[in-house]
Formats: sequence, structure tokens, C-alpha cells
Amino acid sequence: MCAQRGIGMQAGTGISQPAVSECVRRTLAEDLGGGDLTADIIDAASVSRARVVTREAAVVCGQAWFDEVFRQLDDRVRVRWLVAEGAEVTPGDTLCGLTGPTRALLTGERTALNLLQTLSGTATVAREYARLLAGTQARLLDTRKTLPGLRLEQKYAVRCGGGHNHRLGLYDGILIKENHIAAAGSISAAVALARARHPGVAVEVEVESLAGLDEALAAGADIAMLDNFSVEDMRRAAGQAAGRIKLEASGGIDRAQLRAVADTGVDFVSVGALTKHLRAIDLSMRFDE
Amino acid sequence: MCAQRGIGMQAGTGISQPAVSECVRRTLAEDLGGGDLTADIIDAASVSRARVVTREAAVVCGQAWFDEVFRQLDDRVRVRWLVAEGAEVTPGDTLCGLTGPTRALLTGERTALNLLQTLSGTATVAREYARLLAGTQARLLDTRKTLPGLRLEQKYAVRCGGGHNHRLGLYDGILIKENHIAAAGSISAAVALARARHPGVAVEVEVESLAGLDEALAAGADIAMLDNFSVEDMRRAAGQAAGRIKLEASGGIDRAQLRAVADTGVDFVSVGALTKHLRAIDLSMRFDE
Amino acid sequence: MCAQRGIGMQAGTGISQPAVSECVRRTLAEDLGGGDLTADIIDAASVSRARVVTREAAVVCGQAWFDEVFRQLDDRVRVRWLVAEGAEVTPGDTLCGLTGPTRALLTGERTALNLLQTLSGTATVAREYARLLAGTQARLLDTRKTLPGLRLEQKYAVRCGGGHNHRLGLYDGILIKENHIAAAGSISAAVALARARHPGVAVEVEVESLAGLDEALAAGADIAMLDNFSVEDMRRAAGQAAGRIKLEASGGIDRAQLRAVADTGVDFVSVGALTKHLRAIDLSMRFDE
Amino acid sequence: MCAQRGIGMQAGTGISQPAVSECVRRTLAEDLGGGDLTADIIDAASVSRARVVTREAAVVCGQAWFDEVFRQLDDRVRVRWLVAEGAEVTPGDTLCGLTGPTRALLTGERTALNLLQTLSGTATVAREYARLLAGTQARLLDTRKTLPGLRLEQKYAVRCGGGHNHRLGLYDGILIKENHIAAAGSISAAVALARARHPGVAVEVEVESLAGLDEALAAGADIAMLDNFSVEDMRRAAGQAAGRIKLEASGGIDRAQLRAVADTGVDFVSVGALTKHLRAIDLSMRFDE
Amino acid sequence: MCAQRGIGMQAGTGISQPAVSECVRRTLAEDLGGGDLTADIIDAASVSRARVVTREAAVVCGQAWFDEVFRQLDDRVRVRWLVAEGAEVTPGDTLCGLTGPTRALLTGERTALNLLQTLSGTATVAREYARLLAGTQARLLDTRKTLPGLRLEQKYAVRCGGGHNHRLGLYDGILIKENHIAAAGSISAAVALARARHPGVAVEVEVESLAGLDEALAAGADIAMLDNFSVEDMRRAAGQAAGRIKLEASGGIDRAQLRAVADTGVDFVSVGALTKHLRAIDLSMRFDE
Amino acid sequence: MCAQRGIGMQAGTGISQPAVSECVRRTLAEDLGGGDLTADIIDAASVSRARVVTREAAVVCGQAWFDEVFRQLDDRVRVRWLVAEGAEVTPGDTLCGLTGPTRALLTGERTALNLLQTLSGTATVAREYARLLAGTQARLLDTRKTLPGLRLEQKYAVRCGGGHNHRLGLYDGILIKENHIAAAGSISAAVALARARHPGVAVEVEVESLAGLDEALAAGADIAMLDNFSVEDMRRAAGQAAGRIKLEASGGIDRAQLRAVADTGVDFVSVGALTKHLRAIDLSMRFDE
Repeated sequence: MCAQRGIGMQAGTGISQPAVSECVRRTLAEDLGGGDLTADIIDAASVSRARVVTREAAVVCGQAWFDEVFRQLDDRVRVRWLVAEGAEVTPGDTLCGLTGPTRALLTGERTALNLLQTLSGTATVAREYARLLAGTQARLLDTRKTLPGLRLEQKYAVRCGGGHNHRLGLYDGILIKENHIAAAGSISAAVALARARHPGVAVEVEVESLAGLDEALAAGADIAMLDNFSVEDMRRAAGQAAGRIKLEASGGIDRAQLRAVADTGVDFVSVGALTKHLRAIDLSMRFDE
Repeated sequence: MCAQRGIGMQAGTGISQPAVSECVRRTLAEDLGGGDLTADIIDAASVSRARVVTREAAVVCGQAWFDEVFRQLDDRVRVRWLVAEGAEVTPGDTLCGLTGPTRALLTGERTALNLLQTLSGTATVAREYARLLAGTQARLLDTRKTLPGLRLEQKYAVRCGGGHNHRLGLYDGILIKENHIAAAGSISAAVALARARHPGVAVEVEVESLAGLDEALAAGADIAMLDNFSVEDMRRAAGQAAGRIKLEASGGIDRAQLRAVADTGVDFVSVGALTKHLRAIDLSMRFDE
Repeated sequence: MCAQRGIGMQAGTGISQPAVSECVRRTLAEDLGGGDLTADIIDAASVSRARVVTREAAVVCGQAWFDEVFRQLDDRVRVRWLVAEGAEVTPGDTLCGLTGPTRALLTGERTALNLLQTLSGTATVAREYARLLAGTQARLLDTRKTLPGLRLEQKYAVRCGGGHNHRLGLYDGILIKENHIAAAGSISAAVALARARHPGVAVEVEVESLAGLDEALAAGADIAMLDNFSVEDMRRAAGQAAGRIKLEASGGIDRAQLRAVADTGVDFVSVGALTKHLRAIDLSMRFDE
Repeated sequence: MCAQRGIGMQAGTGISQPAVSECVRRTLAEDLGGGDLTADIIDAASVSRARVVTREAAVVCGQAWFDEVFRQLDDRVRVRWLVAEGAEVTPGDTLCGLTGPTRALLTGERTALNLLQTLSGTATVAREYARLLAGTQARLLDTRKTLPGLRLEQKYAVRCGGGHNHRLGLYDGILIKENHIAAAGSISAAVALARARHPGVAVEVEVESLAGLDEALAAGADIAMLDNFSVEDMRRAAGQAAGRIKLEASGGIDRAQLRAVADTGVDFVSVGALTKHLRAIDLSMRFDE
Repeated sequence: MCAQRGIGMQAGTGISQPAVSECVRRTLAEDLGGGDLTADIIDAASVSRARVVTREAAVVCGQAWFDEVFRQLDDRVRVRWLVAEGAEVTPGDTLCGLTGPTRALLTGERTALNLLQTLSGTATVAREYARLLAGTQARLLDTRKTLPGLRLEQKYAVRCGGGHNHRLGLYDGILIKENHIAAAGSISAAVALARARHPGVAVEVEVESLAGLDEALAAGADIAMLDNFSVEDMRRAAGQAAGRIKLEASGGIDRAQLRAVADTGVDFVSVGALTKHLRAIDLSMRFDE
Repeated sequence: MCAQRGIGMQAGTGISQPAVSECVRRTLAEDLGGGDLTADIIDAASVSRARVVTREAAVVCGQAWFDEVFRQLDDRVRVRWLVAEGAEVTPGDTLCGLTGPTRALLTGERTALNLLQTLSGTATVAREYARLLAGTQARLLDTRKTLPGLRLEQKYAVRCGGGHNHRLGLYDGILIKENHIAAAGSISAAVALARARHPGVAVEVEVESLAGLDEALAAGADIAMLDNFSVEDMRRAAGQAAGRIKLEASGGIDRAQLRAVADTGVDFVSVGALTKHLRAIDLSMRFDE
């Protein structure tokens, strides 16, 4: 369903219809309350055609949510997509056409666009970052720094943009930080405890220095998060790891540094900015005369 | 509870405890799932002190949500705020201190920070825009272009920053747009219909030209939204309105144009960018040794 | 969708399908629990025809809810309405015909009728009151005195009956009462505070006397609620207001006084009795032999 | 917790705290939305005293809901009841005193009163009807004709008033009606089917005539609902039943007929009007100066 | 819809579609979270055929839940049942065939089978116990000892297996136990209290001895629960009751004792093991090549 | 909080308070409905002491849920545990003591016991299986074959018993089965696809033969699930893997075979029976005289 792109980007996958429905239910509720006070100016029998146009370049993301808005409002609305989920569009492109009762189109317009412009915003920035990594072995990861209530949706958009997901939450991955190490006494003790209880789960350790990386290696951790390492130290870390442990560069890495970081040989670069900030794509719905 | 600022900014008000609880319940659920896999490395009896520090200048917003995260996780956690809701802080400032079970502090850290950094992000940009309007009669308004699921929270943050709220949704205000006008036949017909059905609700009309403004005036609308008017036309509109109708400047107004727009004499400037984009504030939780 | 009546009554508008679904989901749950113990006496393959008949004069209201009950139970049920939403019916009139699985018709009968008889009850009394105001400039308003959990539904029914809605809740309108005035120091101080924070929201002030009305006028309030004024004082208030402020008559106004109150020249008469009391319409579902 | 009254009325029982919390959560949400726009005129530190006074005679019902409103809003509010749940009060009586933050008292006032005035309204009419049956063997029953979403709450109020509950819904009792009998072929066949499947559940049969009662008796039903019998036929039915089957008089019985019906010797009189109509009690919250 | 079996077993009845939808919504959510990570290996356009086969003898139960899983995931999936709800199947039997998008079949497989294997497990053991009672007057009852969150579903499965339901919960039946008797002072006082408040509800009393049974008889209780009586005492109890009160044998009765207990002449045998334990049926979904 | 046992068993960890609250809310609702009809026989002021005693050997699991039941019902109830979560108890042991209002103790008794007996049932069987593996390198895993609606709770109980968790659902782990392999064309193609999209997630492949294992090894999968291998083949697989890939033995392994399977050198043995079946522990609440 997603366009395969030259640099290996593929669209997001792995979102379930029930999760989409629940997200739309909640989002529609906050715009509709009991109902649209202005809607009844429009004749109930009136039918319209409209289309969604983008005013800027973007990776399209969120089609399932957009469709669901109108399904919940009035199942007579039909949406026909002209571009695939995950496709790149340029200013002026038409994303989809809609036909249906005018009231439903007007009532759903803002909610549907808000979902689409938000998810496309995240997918677009993920695509941009992912492209900067093209040709290196490094992969782009998101973090748990997400907009409240939109964790799963943003993680989907990151995948749609060509990035990958770090753990979804505290429940599906182990990340041993400073406090855990202090509590356990050492990195090895912390890793051993985690491993003993959750043998099926990858264990990542946050390290502050090359010495810490040695400890993580010795403890048999799966991944080391290099916290605020210099580019030089990352390169040393990659040499030291020699493939025996995965390395994740982390900590305030911006666009300018991204390529240099990736070139050090780390396996992952995680970027909080992907999901904690949001620049919505400028989309509009235009009604045919 | 909010600091009164020199330029007349006051903190957000009007959020209810049940709404805060529900938002936190949902946000915690997406991070916790069944539970925190790493938490049990920490001794259940361990108690810690921590504080939240900002790495950048910001308007603090979201204290009630931050508190609620820990209340839902473990009511033994205590949070003591050193700055008021709505206060302005500078890099390095400590926002609050926390004490309580180490496990709860670690488990709640990310969710609590995500809420605080997101709402503070919106409040900070609202404060910045509001300050640009200082000394004019124009007031800053938000729009319905919000992050899905965060409408009420972002509207609160806008107020906290010194902005004001346009309608909350389709249910509490009337905004007559092009399609409504076409359906009713004319601006006056549309206003009359809306007024007849919802006499207690302010009626706003979107106008595309000074001629449209004349029609809205004649129709007795309460507010005219000047859609993509030039600054020069806004000034003419203000003269034409002469206080008989409120004027709202709207349509892609950015920081650079804001003051010029405000100086035309319009009553409101509405800015979608306040809430459709989000730049999270860079906050961190630091544990005492 | 609603019949236009001679005296200018129009049917309710502005209810959203998601709000209807949620209300029906909750209402069905309280009648069904796990299931209908008596239903299996009926052959699962049996199909019936039935119709809903009214035993008393009424304004029909709640068709969307009635339909939704059967949609949620068994989407093979078909409902065909013979009268429009908002129409007036007389004893013996058939409102709609139904066909479908007998089990579903019997299981949904009570829930569907409860919704229809309740909303029609509110619409009927609203129509009656609204008609008493015909020919005056006064409009009928509801209040926040509603049946717990049915606020939006009753507000819809009031509109359907020809009345209008006061604010939906505490979140979409400002009503300054005695305590607020005392806290702010004066009516003007209270209005100024409210205006400053929520410039887009109409400000109403409750006044106890003609002097209070003067203050509200001076403060620039949009509406004054004349609390328990005598008819004579209402007339004086209308003269004093001279269209510069809207006047709402309020406080225990019953059918007998309604016309006299309306004739004083006030703009609105608000009646708690519309929604705090409920007289259900006597409807029955009759199965064809 | 309920006062025992001379004629044997006792207060309602059997409501659970979780059910109360859920009802209040929903009811508060519809009044608060995001928050109370007028509340911030009041100083956040202000504390007040208030009391709830009744303007008419009533049976007090709904204290647990009233308390819960303030518990959810602000747990610093204290409510002290001066009368017991189920007590009878007269005009001018104070029901309870409240102290707490002024904002919370004002914000919760309407929701708390709506719950109390609604449930007390149902309890009051139930008490009135129950008293009319005093000295007879007949007991007052409610029906499934209830206000949408308030089934359990109204059933509680009926018990609080001195009435008794018919089945809660379709899931906890069997009522064989005309359609069921037609489907099964005869009353005995229908009863046998119901009995075979749900042996632990009382079986009630709706009968249209004395002949029908004979069939129900022969079929071993537990209760016969005498549908629209004349008073004379009810008396004959009571003789015929001779205690071998319980009799429920049903069908449009109003206050005027109630005693005559009860004197026929039937065991139950069920009255839809108890719960399908609602006359709220006129209560007000008064703040101390 | 259920097969009528020789010994009088009939399939479960009385489950409502809304209850099924809600159960499935919750169950799917715990397996899907945001989405199926493995699903996108499969081509989105791929369509498959599969069938559900049983590896052991069972009573089939839960078809409505199984169907609903796929309806919520992707409404293009079609399920065709080859056996009726409540039917007995033997190892190797095909229960149903499915066709539809391969992704949806794979994503829904585990959730759909979990529901079917669980409910069939309960129905199967209920059928086995019920069959042991064949030819006696005793009927098999379940209890409130159910798996958390599955009360209504298990009660349905018990009916589907040929057993019957004791009360659904604390809200639809009265069971007077030792503590209640102690609080009231005597069995008669307790029964009288219960009867007075809830005249429409059957009253059951737990008795510890034949003397207790006498008291229950004198008090006019409807049912006596013989708690841990010897088989001999049960027989005496049946003689003593002589049909004037129903008798329920209860307390750790296992398969071996069941028939002996039933032969004593008691009316009901309640078995906690039916629902507190669960042996899932071994089912598998097989894809056609 | 959990007892450390000689064979290295530790109690369950990683369950969050919000997840416990939500599970209890749902479970209480199904038992309480509107309320406990029998409770009001007990004096509202009566206070009791009780204790929970086990009639059989068990691993105690579910204390947080048990506590939460009473917290939601009446926060005056106090529970004091005499054994740790995860502790082993023998017949006759007292698990905890309770004091509080008698009504709340009686109303909550069944729900609290159902939760405790169910989770302890799962923990007990997990402990038993885990003990059979003691001394081998093999670890016990659960599966996704769980009781509908109890996934997280059962996974917690498995950990509490000394077992470990396989993936929680489809969203947090990749398991490539026959259909996925067929769709991708080969094991290596399927693994490559999965790895490319979800680089942070462990990839497991189901293999049917030693040849399949070779392919999985070559493809670089993290884990191979040996589906229905003979013990002999498992031993060969362990030799072949030589630590380069983790091995999971799977497919109808029962108690009798468990040790033999573990001795082959596999890393994990997964057992559906741990969670798809349930044998509740026989617990009772006894009130002090």
C-alpha cells in the first residue's frame, strides 16, 4: 500500500483498524461535542465534491484516520486517494478526492485534516532525517518523547517516513539508566537482574563513557546507548564494539550533526526531535464549485 | 496561582480536575501498558529526591498534569513547585522538586515530562506572540487547528501564555464560511438562519473582501473574519467597521507580520501556528545523588 | 429534515452521529446487561412488522436515537418514518413502521421507546412554551438544570421544539453571579476580568435590581439576567436597556406568567422547567398480527 | 443510614460506590467540558460556607452522588448532612452544609443539585404512591420505563422512596408477553421453555383476561401481570389466584385509582409514571455572607 | 441456532450483540496494541482460505465472538460455520471455514481462537456435568466463582452447555449467608428484611443443618442452599422440604459425587468448578495451501 | 516485595497501579451492577475482622488486585498481608487479615477472591513447571494463548511463578510463521523484511525441521521456534545452533516431557497450558466471630 522509494523508504505498517477507530472517536468528540451549530445552514440533501491539496512538500501519512473520520460521521462519504500512504507529494498536489453529503464534509473537514497534517508532519521529518542517513549502516530511531496521547500514531508515522521504532513504552523493552545501575551496584549486576527476569527482551544500557561501554560489553548487553558522546568517542566506541554490541547514538543530535554521527559506524541514531516537536503540513480541503 | 506579568499576561485558568485526570490516565496507559520492565532493578523500598530543570527559556504550563501523573502512580510522591503556573523561566532554572519512591519517580518521569514540555511549548509560543501585540488593541486567538486529542489542553496552554480562545469546537460557536453562504444564498440569509436557531451564540462570518465585510455588517454579524486580507485592506476594514463589528485577521500570519497586522486596528489576530505546530521545551529530571 | 411549522418552529439540528451512538450504547447496556432472557422463546428466524403509535399529542423528537438502537442490535431491522423529526402528531398517529427479526424488535422495543418518549417529552413542552411566545420578540431559552447524563440530548430536544439553548455548560459561556461580583468587588470589575480572559465569549451578568442593570450596562456586559424581577420591573428594565444590552428574564416563570413576561420587551425568557422536569410521551410499539 | 419511617418506608439501599463514581464522572463531564470559564474571577485561595435548602416538601435522595461531585472536583470540600438519606423534609429545611474552596463550590453547584433534585424527585413520588398503598398487602413496583442512562439510579430512588423494583433489565427477569406466547403456541409452552432454560429466574406472564390467568396458573408461572384489567376483574383475579400465583396490576394506573386497585387484593401495582416522568425538587445552594 | 440434543441440552441464548462487541474490542486491544509487527511481510492484496479444526471432542461455543473479531479487523473476512452453536464435535471436525485478506486472518487468528477455545471449554464441561444429571430432577447451576472480566461470557457458555445460571451478581439475587443471619438475629428476621425490601427477588438462604432448613422453611425462603451436607442429610432435607422450598446442593461437589447428590432429590446442584477452572479446547486454524 | 526462593524464583514484577485499577473496576462492575441487594441486612455501622485462608498449596499472586477491590469499595477497609507476593503457602495458611465495615467486606469478598484465586492459580502452575526446569539452562515461557481480557494479568502471574514472558502481543515481537515464509518466498527473505522494518525487535522464526533451522541460522534470526520437534531432533538442533541462535521448544509439551525437553539444551520451553487453562486455588474468607 505504500510506495517503495529509491532510498529504501517504505510506508508505515502495523497499525490496526481498532486503534484507528478509537483515536478518531476521541478526536471527533473534542471537535463535535453534541453537534455542529453551523451545519444546518446547509440543506441536508446537498451533496458536494471536494479534494485535499497540499501547499507544501510532504510525506503523506494518516489515510486510515482520515477515512475513518468520515466513516464515523456519515458512511455515505466516499474518499478516493490519488497517492499512496507514504508517498512524497509536492506543493499543489491533490492527495484525495471526496464526495458525499455537504454537511458531513464540512463537519469532518477540520478533524480529518488535523489528523492528516499532524501524522504527515511527523512522517515528513522522519523521511528527511532518514534520507540523511542513506548509504550509512546507521538507522534512525524515535524515542518515548512523544505528544501526549499520540504515541502509537506517531510511531506509525515514523515508520511511514522511513525511520524505525525504539521501544513503544516501558512495557516492551529494557533500558538501564544511571539510577538503575546505581541501585544494582554495577552495570553487570543490573544487566544480570534484567536478563534473569525478562530473558526474551533486549537489554539496552545507557553508558556515559568508553569505560562504561566496556562494562556493557562484558555484561552481555544487547545495545549500548552512547549518551552525549563526542563524534570522536562514538568512532572509538564503534571500533571497540566491533559488532559484538549494537550502538545507539543519543542526546540532542540535530540535522547538522546527523551525517557525521552516522559515519562513525554506530548502528542507530535516536532523535527525540522527531516526535516531541511537530510541524504540521499545510493542507487544505477545497470544494468544487 | 499564575504570576501576573507586566504586559498583562496571566496564567491559564478554567481547566477541571476531572479533565486532567482523564488526560493523564490515557497518557500513562500508552507508556506503561502492563508495567515498567526495568523498574524492578530498583529496590522497592528505595526513596529518592529529584528536580525538574529547564534547559531553555519557557513559560511553565501543565503543573496539574505533572502532579496527576504521580498521584495516579503512587500517592506517596510529593511535588513542590518553585515557580507558578504561567511563570517565565530561564535556562537552568529549577521548576519543581520531587521526593518519593524511586520506582515511581523513574516510571513516571517520561510521561510527566512529556505533558509538561508539550503544554509549556504551546504556552511559550503563545506568550511570545501575545507580547508582540502588547500596546495594540488586538488580541491573540487560537484556532481549531490543534493536535489530535489535545484540544482542551492546548486551549488551556494558550490562555496560560496570554492568548485567548476562539471557539472550542463546532458546538460552541458559529462560523459561517463560503459553503454556508453559498447554501443560504447570501451572507444575510446565512446570518439570519444562524441567529434564528442559536440566538445566544456569537455569529462570525468569513469574508473575502471589503464588500463582503459590508454585507456582514448589514447582516448584523458579531465578528467578521478577514480571510487573507492585505494589511492595507485590513486597515480599510477597521475604518469601515468603526467598532460596529469585531474584526478577526486570519490566514497564515507569521511572527514577522504580526505587529503590522495588529496596528491596522483589528480586534483579533488568529494564528493556527500556535497549536498546529509544537516545539517542546527541553526539560530534564535530575536525581540527587 | 424537520418540518417547518407555521409559527416558525423548526426541528432540532446539530446533533452528531457519534454522540447519538455513544448515548445509545450506554442506554442499551443498562437494559440488556448480558442479554435478553426471554428472547429465545422466539424462533431466531422469525421476522415481524411493527409500528410505533402515539397515544397523545406530541412533537416527535429522537428519531436518530431510535434508529441507532436497532442498528446496534441487529442491522437487518429497517425503520421507516412517516413523520419528520420535529413534526406534531395527534393521538393515534403512526410515527414509524419497523420490519426485521422479531427477537431484535422485542429486545430493542423498550430502549428505543424510552429514548423517543423522553426526547419527545422535552420537545413537546418546549414547543408549547415557544408557541406562547409567538408574536413577541422574546425567545425561549433552556438552562443547565437538566437530567444527569442527558444534557446534550435535552438541549437538542429543546431546539427541536422551537426553543433555544443557553450555554451548554460552564465551559462555553460566562455567567457572572452574586459570588463572582462579591469576589471581584463590583459588577464592572467582574465583567472586566471575564472580558480580559475570554474576549470571544459573551458575558452575562445576573442582576437583582434596576440599579444592578445600570451597572451591567455601564460595564458593557452582553446580557443581563433579571433574577426574579416583577413584571413591572422587567418592563422598566426593557426601557432602560433600550437595546444596548440583551435581557433575560429568569426565575420560576411558569406557563401562566410566560406571555406577560414576554410582553415586557425582554429578549429571552429562560425556563428551568423545560429540562429539569420530564413528562414522557405515551408511545407504544404494536406488532402486526 | 436511612431513617425508618412510621409507615414502614426505609431509605434506598444497594447502590455501590463504583456505580456512583461512574455516574458522577459522566455528569460532571457534560457540565465542565474543559473547565469553568467564570471560576477564575474568584480568588483561588477563597474559602466559603454554603448550605442546600429545599423550597418544597421532598424525600431526600442522592446524597452519595452529591458528595462524589465535590470529591471528584476538589477533595478539600466537606459536606455535612443534617438529614438522613430517605428522610422527609419540608420547605425551608436545610439538607446539608458545605465548606471548602469557593471555586469548587461554585463549579460543582449545578451538577450536584441536578443529581440531588432528580433522584429526590423520583423518591418523593415513590413515597407518595407507596403511602397510598399503606395498610394494603399490595406493594408498589417500578418498571423499565426509565430515563435513558439513569436506570440504576432511578431504581435506587424508588427503593429510597419506599417502592420496590421490578426487574432491572431484560437480563434478570423473565416477562412473557403476547408475542412470546404467540411464538411458543400457548402460555404453558412459553412458560415451560422459559423455565427449562432459566430455572433460577422468576417467570412472569402478561395476561389479558381471567382465562389467561387460568392458563398462567396451570402453567405454574410465578407472577401474572394483569394488563389493563378493570378493578372488578382484578378482584376476581385475586380470588381465582388464592395465593397460588402473585398478581401484578399494570397499565396506566394513576394516583386516583391506586388505592382501589390495591384493595382488590393484588400483590403488586406497577407504575410506569414513577420513573418515566420526573418532577425535580426545587433545591438551592445558598452561600453564607 | 443451536442443535437440540437428545438429552435435552440446548445451546446458549440470551447474549446481546453490544456485549459481544465490547468483549471483543477489549480482547483484540490486548493482542494488537498499535498493530501486528509481522503482518506486513504478507502482501496487502493477498487473500486466503482457512478453517478451524478441533483436536478434541468439545461443545462449540463462542461463534458470535469469533465472527466479531474479524468484523472489527476487516469486514471483508467471511466466516461460514459448519456446526451450530452448542453442537458437539469430535476430533478432526472442521468447525468453520474462513476466506478473506490473509493479513486479517493471521492478525485475528489468536484472539478469535482464544475466545472460542475458552468459551467452548466452559460449555464442554457444563455439558459433561449436565449429562451426569440426566434423568434426575436436579439441574446444574453455576456460581459467581468466575474468571475476572468474563462473568457474562462464562454464564452464557454454561447455558450453551446445558447448565443453568445462578444469580449473575450481587445485584440480581439475594443469598443470605451466615453473616447476614448473625446480623439480623435469625434466619426469619433476615428473610423478612430481604423480602420487605426486594419483594420481586427470590430469597435463598444458606443453611448448615437440617434444623437450619426448618427455619428457612418457616421463614418462607424460596431456596435453601445446603452447605456441605452429607448425601444422607441431603436426602433427609429433600424429604423435609417436600417441594415447599427449592433445595440447592453446594460445596465442593465433584464429578464422582454428582449423580449420588442428584439422586437425593435436590432441585439444583451448584458447581464452582464449572467456571472457576478452565480447560481450553485444543483448536487450530489451518490455512489452505 | 516478593520472597526470593531457593531455586531462584522471584515474584512477579512490572505491573502498574493504573492497570490494576482498571482491571478491578471492570471486574467489580460485573459483580456489583448497581449494588448488593443483600448488603443492607447488615447494619451500616457494623465492623468486622476476617482473614483469607488457603485450602491448598499455592503460590500467592494478585495482592495488588485484592487490595484495590476494597479500596474502590470503601477505603476504610484495611488489608494486612502475612505472606509476600510470590510466596508459597500450604493448606491452612492464613494469607492476610482484613478489618473494616462488614458490608464492604461481604460485598467485595467474591470479587477479591476471584482475582486472587485466578492469578495464584496461574502463578502456582508456572512455579511447578519452572521448578521442573531447575538445574537446566532452559527457561519457561508463556504464550499468547491466554484467557480473553486477562493477558497482562496472566503474564504478570507467570513471572510471579518464576516463568518468563514471550511477547505480550502482536505489537512487541516478531514471530515469522509458515504463512509469512510462504508469502516472502523463503525464511531469509522473511527475516530480511522484518529486520529492515523493525530493527530494534527480536526476530523469531518457526521451523519445522533441522533444515529449517539451518535456514534460520543463515538468515540471522535471533530465535528459532522448534515446532513439534522430537526430543532427539531438539538435541540435534541444540548442537547445530551452538549458541548462535536461541532455541525455543514449542508444541504440546506436557509435565511429563518437560524435563527431557529441557535436557536437550534448548534455551526456552514455551507452554500454552500455563495460561490457556486455569485451575483456581481454593481460598476462603473467614470472618471472626
